[in-house]
Amino acid sequence: MAVRHTDRVSTNAADLPADPQATAERVAKAMEHHDEAIRGAGIRLVDVGPGRARTALTVEERHVNGHGIAHGGYLFFLADAAFSFACNSHGVSTVASGGDVAFLRAARLGEELEAEAVERALVGRTGLYDVTVRTGAGEVVAEFRGRSRAVPHLPAPTLD
Amino acid sequence: MAVRHTDRVSTNAADLPADPQATAERVAKAMEHHDEAIRGAGIRLVDVGPGRARTALTVEERHVNGHGIAHGGYLFFLADAAFSFACNSHGVSTVASGGDVAFLRAARLGEELEAEAVERALVGRTGLYDVTVRTGAGEVVAEFRGRSRAVPHLPAPTLD
Amino acid sequence: MAVRHTDRVSTNAADLPADPQATAERVAKAMEHHDEAIRGAGIRLVDVGPGRARTALTVEERHVNGHGIAHGGYLFFLADAAFSFACNSHGVSTVASGGDVAFLRAARLGEELEAEAVERALVGRTGLYDVTVRTGAGEVVAEFRGRSRAVPHLPAPTLD
Amino acid sequence: MAVRHTDRVSTNAADLPADPQATAERVAKAMEHHDEAIRGAGIRLVDVGPGRARTALTVEERHVNGHGIAHGGYLFFLADAAFSFACNSHGVSTVASGGDVAFLRAARLGEELEAEAVERALVGRTGLYDVTVRTGAGEVVAEFRGRSRAVPHLPAPTLD
Repeated sequence: MAVRHTDRVSTNAADLPADPQATAERVAKAMEHHDEAIRGAGIRLVDVGPGRARTALTVEERHVNGHGIAHGGYLFFLADAAFSFACNSHGVSTVASGGDVAFLRAARLGEELEAEAVERALVGRTGLYDVTVRTGAGEVVAEFRGRSRAVPHLPAPTLD
Repeated sequence: MAVRHTDRVSTNAADLPADPQATAERVAKAMEHHDEAIRGAGIRLVDVGPGRARTALTVEERHVNGHGIAHGGYLFFLADAAFSFACNSHGVSTVASGGDVAFLRAARLGEELEAEAVERALVGRTGLYDVTVRTGAGEVVAEFRGRSRAVPHLPAPTLD
Repeated sequence: MAVRHTDRVSTNAADLPADPQATAERVAKAMEHHDEAIRGAGIRLVDVGPGRARTALTVEERHVNGHGIAHGGYLFFLADAAFSFACNSHGVSTVASGGDVAFLRAARLGEELEAEAVERALVGRTGLYDVTVRTGAGEVVAEFRGRSRAVPHLPAPTLD
Repeated sequence: MAVRHTDRVSTNAADLPADPQATAERVAKAMEHHDEAIRGAGIRLVDVGPGRARTALTVEERHVNGHGIAHGGYLFFLADAAFSFACNSHGVSTVASGGDVAFLRAARLGEELEAEAVERALVGRTGLYDVTVRTGAGEVVAEFRGRSRAVPHLPAPTLD
């Protein structure tokens, strides 16, 4: 479903492996290493590959409001994290320029949520990524669409 | 700038004061009381009134990535919180159905951010709220537009 | 990929056939019959089914600007039309509450464009539809996401 | 309300007047001259200035569906046209990268609609423009937010 990128930006990732899957994994590992915010929010990287990623969150007391319902801020955060791993997976530094989220169902205390990001389009430096947030039972909680922009002059994240 | 609501939904807030400002304050106090998630993320309510609200966040270590830049998830969270206080300020239970955020500048460790939400339109049960996130120096970091839907059959938050 | 609707709204379409495909076709035929605007803009319905539709537009002189590039307004129009057929395909009157479009490539004079709408989520009365606009060569020109709301008390379109 | 642009892109408009208002008017005149699509859809430019524009449309038979309600495609088109004049008003060639529209009320046959675009943010090459579509009676029909990107290497429109 994703658009093939006909005019890929030149990569800044001279040291990255040629294999797309290995590149995605190495970049994700470096991003995780540096990103206190995602880890601190309780978000885990589950899987990553070229143009895709999955993240997970167990809904804890700190994520809910007084009605025991996960706050929309954390649903966005979970989806945004998957988007971020996916849009950086090609080894070119890429930033989020924006995104839209639709909240469809409530997620409750104790539920295990997973966000799955797939690349919908990559044209020049512009990318679009669709992220679906589901409960463990497979019910859709939120749909997110992220907009990214490659910034090849920025260094890719490393493990240094 | 906000649209006047010509066909207001019937309120579920029989016990709320008749004064719009007092209503906004009482609802916000009850929401704060019940919302662990906002407080836990480090977000503070600064001001609230009919159809508007301001929230603040000091960018701490836990909010940033390895480059010392606030994570987009927390920028969304801050804006979404202001939106939530603003769209509930009329005393009718209202939920976020979605929102769009544009990230315009990086916010750095130690910066004091403020999100200001204003009501742009309220037509029937549908509301639109514009939220601008600024640094202490007044630079715009993000622009958010939230979509809300009133659910008058839900009880309004109380301090019980 | 579309979410199954667990809590379908009650249909207002007592006279519609029980077969989902036949329902989609009959509703589309009635919509086409009444909709001068779509036809007048040069947009044609190509195919319709339960939760999906395809529309087409040949880029003519009247659709382009001085550089021979199709105006974004017509790209939106084409996508919105596919969305409209798709979200009404279940036989329940449904209105567009909004949508987001990303313009990815220019479409030129003489090109044959097709918009393909698929249902992404249908939860209660709220629907999300993804529409991709492609050239005849399969290049993606625009990506649209439409938000719909069922209004079961409105009569479904008929051929009267 | 609009963000001041601290890091304006270098202009490609060497021949444009130094006065911002005169620049906006000259660019708009050239855009109108070249744009068959806007004129053909029945959209008129009413007013333009630095970072802002107003367009108008009288809802005719060709703009409505069978219920006598203006098609969402034309509401988007009207808003998008105002956005386009506004984001090009500084004399730097600028393209629409996308936009979001919320449909709030129906507009009927014979109504005079006006779209007012204002610059909300301009940071580097990225712009955000808010467009409100109102009836002659001042009721809000739709709210649009356009996203633009300056492309200074493209020539500005001229009257040639």
